[in-house]
Formats: sequence, C-alpha cells, structure tokens
Amino acid sequence: MGTGPRRLEELTETEALRLLGEVPLGRVVFTRHALPAIRPVNHIVVDGHVVIRTTVGTVLSTEVSPAGAVVAFEADQLDMDTRLGWSVIVTGMARPVDDPEEAERYKARLLPWVAGGMDQVIRIRPEIVTGFTLVPA
Amino acid sequence: MGTGPRRLEELTETEALRLLGEVPLGRVVFTRHALPAIRPVNHIVVDGHVVIRTTVGTVLSTEVSPAGAVVAFEADQLDMDTRLGWSVIVTGMARPVDDPEEAERYKARLLPWVAGGMDQVIRIRPEIVTGFTLVPA
Repeated sequence: MGTGPRRLEELTETEALRLLGEVPLGRVVFTRHALPAIRPVNHIVVDGHVVIRTTVGTVLSTEVSPAGAVVAFEADQLDMDTRLGWSVIVTGMARPVDDPEEAERYKARLLPWVAGGMDQVIRIRPEIVTGFTLVPA
Repeated sequence: MGTGPRRLEELTETEALRLLGEVPLGRVVFTRHALPAIRPVNHIVVDGHVVIRTTVGTVLSTEVSPAGAVVAFEADQLDMDTRLGWSVIVTGMARPVDDPEEAERYKARLLPWVAGGMDQVIRIRPEIVTGFTLVPA
C-alpha cells in the first residue's frame, strides 16, 4: 500500500463517536481571554457525550465552570508510518457534572494519569461532530 | 514502574521545542467565529518556529491569512500503556510565508499526507512555549 498520498473520507456522526469512545486520550480545546487553548486529557464517551476530569482552579475548570463554555474535543489515531488512521472533532457546550452520584460514577471510569486533584467532572454535549479517515488515494 | 499515578514535570522552552521538532504531527488550534477549532496537521520546527502547510480556501487558511492570527499548536507522545510521555503547547502569531523561495524550501520538507492542495505555508512564531513530561509520582 506504500505511504503515498491519502484521501480524506468523512465519517458519519455515529462512526465518529464510536471511534472517539475507543481511545482513552484526547485534547480539549477552549478559549481563554479570547485566545485558543488546548490540554491533553483522558476521556470516556457516555450516551453520546464526552466526559473528562479536571482539577478545580485550573484554567480549564475556571473557563467551563459554572456557566458552561463552548469547547472542542479532538482525538485521533494517525499512524506516522502507514499514514493511515482517523481524527474526530466534537464541538459543543461543556458544563460541570453537578450531581455527586453521577460524578462519582464517571470518576470510577476516568482514572487520572496524574496524581492529585482532578475532582471536577465535565460533560461535553456534542453539537457538531466531524471526523475523517485517511484511505489510500 | 507500573501504571500508577504520574507527576507532571515542566519542560524548559528549549526542551519543549526540541521535542516538538522530533515528531511529524501536531494539532493547530485557532478561533473561528469566536469558537474553538482544531485540525491535526504535520509540521516542522525551523529556527524555533513551527511551520505547517494548508490548503488555500480552507477554514484555517482563511482565519490565518492575510493579517495573521494567534493560534496554539500542540504535539504530544503519551503512551497509553505506561502512562509516560510528554506534551508541548506553543502559542503565537501565525502568518502565511509569502516569500516563494522560502515557501518552496519548507514544502520540500513538509510532504502532505493528503493528496492535492496544501499550497499555503504558515509559520507560527512562538510567544508562549509550555510543556510537561509525565514521570512516576
């Protein structure tokens, strides 16, 4: 198959969310003081929503809480050798999960990589879901 | 070493840019209609600047050209099994490379994964460089 040029093939929303749910790590993208900001973070997909954890008091927590904020969330699996793979981008409103039981349920499935904190759970409700796969051109 | 909790260790700017230059793929983050947007893209680091290619007429090209725009650029190598790795985030002004000879030099080193287009070369001049490595806590 070689590593020649690839063609982008669009994913359906269903396929995109399925792929997003199969990887543990993505990147949340938000606006801070009108400037673009990004943080890598692990995530789960629950009922079509993206759920992440953060630490109260961090930039992301402050931007999202309590009124909510529009964010993007991206994950990909792009193989640098074969130049095949996919990328999915979700855009939607992010809000803290306030219900303690619900938050605990998500925390049990979202083990932070970094020690300490990560007590705030944030849910992103996708309004736009886009994604592509790279296929041989 | 296991996969227990990790600690974030901050990278110096020099280390961060060196790591960024060692991987072929990152994600450019920009603002579109006041909303966060992100695109995966391959890149090179030249004289401390991040250089990428895009297609004239795409959202990224339109946002950046001709006046320039503040963008973020992120790359990471985070191993999901060992939970070790690094992430680097650069924020700065992105502008098209207008000089044709300079643009051609960069294009020769920035082979697009996707067939067709990708005729615009964009240079990001880092103003803020942050990065971390994950080390055992």
